[in-house]
Amino acid sequence: MSDLNVTPKQLSAYITTAFRAVGLPEADARTIGELMAEADVQGSDGHGVIRVPVYIRRILGGAVNVTPNIRVVEERAATAVVDGDNGMGHLVMKRATELAIEKARHCGIAWVGSRYSNHAGPASLYARMPLAHDMVALYFAVGNANHLPPWGGLDMLLSTNPIAVAIPTDREPPVVLDMATTVAAFGKVKAKAMLGQMMPEGWMVDRQGQPLLDPRRKDEGFLLPIGGYKGYGLSMIVGLLAGTLNGAAMGKEVVDFNNDDTSMTNTGQAICVIDPAAFGDVQAFKQRVDQLVGDIHASERMPGVDQIWVPGEQSHLKALHNRQHGITVPASLVRELDAVAVQLGVPTLAQTP
Amino acid sequence: MSDLNVTPKQLSAYITTAFRAVGLPEADARTIGELMAEADVQGSDGHGVIRVPVYIRRILGGAVNVTPNIRVVEERAATAVVDGDNGMGHLVMKRATELAIEKARHCGIAWVGSRYSNHAGPASLYARMPLAHDMVALYFAVGNANHLPPWGGLDMLLSTNPIAVAIPTDREPPVVLDMATTVAAFGKVKAKAMLGQMMPEGWMVDRQGQPLLDPRRKDEGFLLPIGGYKGYGLSMIVGLLAGTLNGAAMGKEVVDFNNDDTSMTNTGQAICVIDPAAFGDVQAFKQRVDQLVGDIHASERMPGVDQIWVPGEQSHLKALHNRQHGITVPASLVRELDAVAVQLGVPTLAQTP
Repeated sequence: MSDLNVTPKQLSAYITTAFRAVGLPEADARTIGELMAEADVQGSDGHGVIRVPVYIRRILGGAVNVTPNIRVVEERAATAVVDGDNGMGHLVMKRATELAIEKARHCGIAWVGSRYSNHAGPASLYARMPLAHDMVALYFAVGNANHLPPWGGLDMLLSTNPIAVAIPTDREPPVVLDMATTVAAFGKVKAKAMLGQMMPEGWMVDRQGQPLLDPRRKDEGFLLPIGGYKGYGLSMIVGLLAGTLNGAAMGKEVVDFNNDDTSMTNTGQAICVIDPAAFGDVQAFKQRVDQLVGDIHASERMPGVDQIWVPGEQSHLKALHNRQHGITVPASLVRELDAVAVQLGVPTLAQTP
Repeated sequence: MSDLNVTPKQLSAYITTAFRAVGLPEADARTIGELMAEADVQGSDGHGVIRVPVYIRRILGGAVNVTPNIRVVEERAATAVVDGDNGMGHLVMKRATELAIEKARHCGIAWVGSRYSNHAGPASLYARMPLAHDMVALYFAVGNANHLPPWGGLDMLLSTNPIAVAIPTDREPPVVLDMATTVAAFGKVKAKAMLGQMMPEGWMVDRQGQPLLDPRRKDEGFLLPIGGYKGYGLSMIVGLLAGTLNGAAMGKEVVDFNNDDTSMTNTGQAICVIDPAAFGDVQAFKQRVDQLVGDIHASERMPGVDQIWVPGEQSHLKALHNRQHGITVPASLVRELDAVAVQLGVPTLAQTP
């Protein structure tokens, strides 16, 4: 079997069919298909179709509710808490983001948190949604597995807790930062292990605090936070804002969803949407952002540097490329997805029109 | 001349008198005195009384407005832009924070940005204010001097743009993160130079990207962002949120206020206040934060580590110590402050009751 090149539509249709087959309503399955395919389109391939097997396994294991009653349980003019009723995180956070956009339009800003949500894919997926409304967004999430101890500690109480921020522009691609608060995301460690490569120093340390370079030994050590104690602080703060504030899991309560097909995760996320119209002229704001991006591009470069990138530009180019040329699904993943299709009695990715 | 031990009240009174002498109204001078002394009390000694000489020099140079008309120029239910009219940043951001607290009480969250503000001291000073109301706060600021190029670049378009976040607790000290988006703040580099010490690798690089260790060569290189390109992205985002969104200076427009006594800086800051009462029971939230802090303290430790710290604990202990035992002002700083007192014809710090 070889790599498979698919259109975003084909990818989305395959995912939709799989989720319908395990009991999700048509519209919800389609929403998930579209969002997961979009993750692959923008190059967040660690958070797209690659997650289908684990999501489906957890649904079949009874860990996730396929017909949740997703509802607002706390509400003020500019805030809400959405109880996901243990539904798929994509459904919960799409709903939360739409609500935040609506509230921000009236109040200038809104913050909507989730509890009893689940893994929702890449952080930037939700931070990007308000861009269509010329709005700024910040997204925070509690990661679904703890790989980070507090600074100086050995107990893995923290996760890669990501932050995403999206800022609209006029002519430039939007500025979109999407980062784990660890130097490397755990998915990158697994990728190195799969490729049989060593990790660079600075990604992980062992329990003595010594550099851990062999990704096959990943369970003997932990990820390092960015900027040392600063990244530890950031990870903790993100977890408090996205988890603890909403009554969602944080610290010891976090369930490693990759290794558990039956437990509810009570995942927490938060989306904050800001309407630049509340701060002055939107067009003028977007032009000022363009100006900064232009100045950054025009900066004199260090020896050996060909181009200076602004956050979000590389995903933007990947998305343009993938929409035109299709998405390449590696052979090993095609095999896994085929197994899921056979198990569910649905068409394989290659068979999906 | 030797080090001088002073009470917070004495420090505050000295600063108040100095600012009155250069034309600030009594109440404004007192606000600045209290906030700057509080910076020293909590151990942010790079942002406390040490800044008096440069602040006073800039006021005498005509760079700062001593009788500003600080006012709200844009407003929605949960947002505002405060125009500082080029007044002292402490006055602008105290006003902005009080407004954000009031708005958050009604809307659940509020975000207030500033333009035509000035350097306002340590970020945590404002993030901590809402703690008295059991509220969460996030603070962002554009630094007042560019020491950071974009990743791979040589033009210093970015600053140390700090982030502070404060989260209320029940019995534990509040969780307070206050961090520059660079590995080291520029003040730490200057401190190393003053002490004649080398910097550790990772703080600065030269224009070839090679480690720069001698702080006396600081003007030949630049600071490194935390987590490499991630910290560069964070610094840019903080600048966009605290500066560009408000119509304040960012990128090329940033004025190095340490080396300029006549230009307006148009400094931008932003304070975001969240009322946990909008997300559920406040007491239960604070207890969940305590629980996490307790679990972190109880973590097994790496060899050689005596204690695991939570962000904000060290400042909390410093503040307790300084309130009880007084603040030690180093002899070199006492000399500078005495020179200011003589210039203004006011009592020296030692003469201040």
